Amino acid sequence: MDRIVSLSKRRGFAFPSSEIYGGLGSTYDYGHYGVLLKQNVIDAWWDAMLERDDIVALDSAILQHPRVWEASGHLAGFSDPLVDCRACQRRFRADHLEQAQCPHKPSRPPGQGPDCDLTAARDFNLMFSTTVGPVQDAGSTAYLRPETAQGIFINFKNVLQLARRKPPFGIAQVGKSFRNEITPGNFLFRVREFEQMEMEYFVPPDEAEKWYRYWIDERLSWYVNLGLRESTLRVREHEEEERSHYSSGTSDIEYLYPIGWQELEGVANRGDFDLTQHTRSSGTKLEFVGQEGERYTPHVIEPAVSIERIFVAMLCDAYDEEVVGERERTVLRLHPLIAPVKAAVLPLIPRDEGMSSRARELYELLRKRHTVEHDDSGQIGRRYRRQDEIGTPWAFTVDEQTLEDETVTVRDRDSLAQDRLAIADVPAWLDTALERPWRSPKA
Amino acid sequence: MDRIVSLSKRRGFAFPSSEIYGGLGSTYDYGHYGVLLKQNVIDAWWDAMLERDDIVALDSAILQHPRVWEASGHLAGFSDPLVDCRACQRRFRADHLEQAQCPHKPSRPPGQGPDCDLTAARDFNLMFSTTVGPVQDAGSTAYLRPETAQGIFINFKNVLQLARRKPPFGIAQVGKSFRNEITPGNFLFRVREFEQMEMEYFVPPDEAEKWYRYWIDERLSWYVNLGLRESTLRVREHEEEERSHYSSGTSDIEYLYPIGWQELEGVANRGDFDLTQHTRSSGTKLEFVGQEGERYTPHVIEPAVSIERIFVAMLCDAYDEEVVGERERTVLRLHPLIAPVKAAVLPLIPRDEGMSSRARELYELLRKRHTVEHDDSGQIGRRYRRQDEIGTPWAFTVDEQTLEDETVTVRDRDSLAQDRLAIADVPAWLDTALERPWRSPKA
Repeated sequence: MDRIVSLSKRRGFAFPSSEIYGGLGSTYDYGHYGVLLKQNVIDAWWDAMLERDDIVALDSAILQHPRVWEASGHLAGFSDPLVDCRACQRRFRADHLEQAQCPHKPSRPPGQGPDCDLTAARDFNLMFSTTVGPVQDAGSTAYLRPETAQGIFINFKNVLQLARRKPPFGIAQVGKSFRNEITPGNFLFRVREFEQMEMEYFVPPDEAEKWYRYWIDERLSWYVNLGLRESTLRVREHEEEERSHYSSGTSDIEYLYPIGWQELEGVANRGDFDLTQHTRSSGTKLEFVGQEGERYTPHVIEPAVSIERIFVAMLCDAYDEEVVGERERTVLRLHPLIAPVKAAVLPLIPRDEGMSSRARELYELLRKRHTVEHDDSGQIGRRYRRQDEIGTPWAFTVDEQTLEDETVTVRDRDSLAQDRLAIADVPAWLDTALERPWRSPKA
Repeated sequence: MDRIVSLSKRRGFAFPSSEIYGGLGSTYDYGHYGVLLKQNVIDAWWDAMLERDDIVALDSAILQHPRVWEASGHLAGFSDPLVDCRACQRRFRADHLEQAQCPHKPSRPPGQGPDCDLTAARDFNLMFSTTVGPVQDAGSTAYLRPETAQGIFINFKNVLQLARRKPPFGIAQVGKSFRNEITPGNFLFRVREFEQMEMEYFVPPDEAEKWYRYWIDERLSWYVNLGLRESTLRVREHEEEERSHYSSGTSDIEYLYPIGWQELEGVANRGDFDLTQHTRSSGTKLEFVGQEGERYTPHVIEPAVSIERIFVAMLCDAYDEEVVGERERTVLRLHPLIAPVKAAVLPLIPRDEGMSSRARELYELLRKRHTVEHDDSGQIGRRYRRQDEIGTPWAFTVDEQTLEDETVTVRDRDSLAQDRLAIADVPAWLDTALERPWRSPKA
């Protein structure tokens, strides 16, 4: 993980936020390549959702009415149990004591150190709260949403009418959520501010189990199609006692992170819990009424993932080091669709005016269709290594021969094979290359 | 404005948030077409920024270190003056009293009603605050950012190194910001939660004025190219006393909203205010050092706009009503690049199996490249009107003749002209149509 974090910072994918002020526990800023990579992931997710006729998009507000969180159960139940140590004044998660260290005796967990004096556990709600409007009274308290899903449920009736759909159909959303985690950490793996991609799929109650299985398979295939190796993915079904209060079935699509198998995406069968709760709490009937008068509260299947976890999984799965000749190189073997830059255009000798102008021309041509880079900043080997580290699948190099026969070399990031190609053919070649199925060459 | 709000709700562009719970003052949720329209605007903005070699992307966190806001001046100065009325317990903006109404005597402003008893004005900070981490003490107070810009300034050094750029160069960002407005309102025009598109352009101090003028022109052209009529746009330079504390020159690109000329986008010359403040406050030198050892603090030109204001301007500029034959129609004359749906495919008689299957085929073909809709939901006139209201530029209709000669009609949203076209030519026809320059037919 340290190498991923270091590469990420060195190349500007993501780095600790507010760094010049000493940072702000576990929030991150994304640099240029991080923004591009994230956007490619979000685009691929929207494509998978909206290429279907049965899913529509929504974008609900982060600040919602406080009664939303009362109805959803978050106000009462979305909390971690905490204990304080009266001796060292530290605070720990009561359910994770065994993994924690007593600051006075790091070989032992809190409660077993020399002077440990732990309080009883108290619940600590994970929602950030704030005050809306000029008056600071209880009525104007609002919460930063801890999940985007509730914004979908409270708009169910609205969307049902507008979209003229009937179950099975889904509502998809991408947006920020916030959780005041007590023990954030592991790079972007557990952060207080994160971006979710959630889809709520509303189905007739007797089809819930079928669609639950269906979405587990669909989402797993999505990751495989984006280049994650099948050996690093698995599905793990939650035990009954592990499941959230609303769930009648949850499976994690897990990824083998450097810290072990961990949740990448969750697929939950939320049953009719949310629609029933909001119906009760708001007085608005959130149900489906068919043309023949049949009516029911749909059940909900929810695939939900944070972009941060995909981001880390993509970097981990792509990261590779190898010795080529006498040199070591670090390379990100990203799926070309996810790679922030699709191709680099490089003049072999930047000072050579002929090479430089030909490279410029090719770059201007390609950039109309794809995110490409032009780099004339020094030795060619260094420039290749930089592109390898940001995961650019192909580099087109303009050299002496280009000036004679109008061909360039194309270098493949993974195989390091170099071929020659007519300049005129490069745009079509790149289009075709980007459409080819891709599999990770990592074992 | 009422008609825009009504269309927006009826067709699911945007509607009040948390509506089943009575709403939450001035926050909005975006429905399917709203999400698509917003995304088209964001994509067009990113294209304009990243098609340049001198601008890179950033995505900084919403929660930043509290000292960021101390240094930026927001903690001390980002406030509105408020007065309370002891008689009616209401609160008003002291600087907008003349536009407000005394609740007891609505023809008079507060302070001139029968029992008015106003307090002296007190400053009310517009930043939302919250508490990070498990302990609620002063040290862990954090603010929801009121602008994305500061996230760019505090990363200046970082990005300068990573991007290997020198002034003039820019850092662009899109993301949510929050302001606890006392008097939000006018649909999406003044909301508490909004999405900004900001670009900070760092320049040598003696070039600041030149680039300030340059970016006013660039941004104005961007709106014209996206179809806003030149007659509804103007540039207004701020008077000295109007300008923010950091600004040495600000111009608003104003749009003629139904409520009058109002700021659409601001272009500010922020000078070296922000980099100097953060250098002083953090101890990290935020300056440019050239290869020959020259060093200076760059000045900053900032074009900044919220997507909400563009969203409203686009809807207002596109909205049109006209009488066609004996019928009235409402039509959104959006630029095709901004229109949420590019084309509709309609079988004239949905029950006819031949028409239905040909329409399906054409739809499946087009959706691979563009956002298109297939609609077989009833009378053709109603389907056209629905597409007019969401601004779909073209409709392809499969009719009896299609089954004979493999042609379809193409209907133009603006002119209502109908032509016939071979089905096989439709994909290329649509590609070409989308690339044609477009100007609003509205007077």
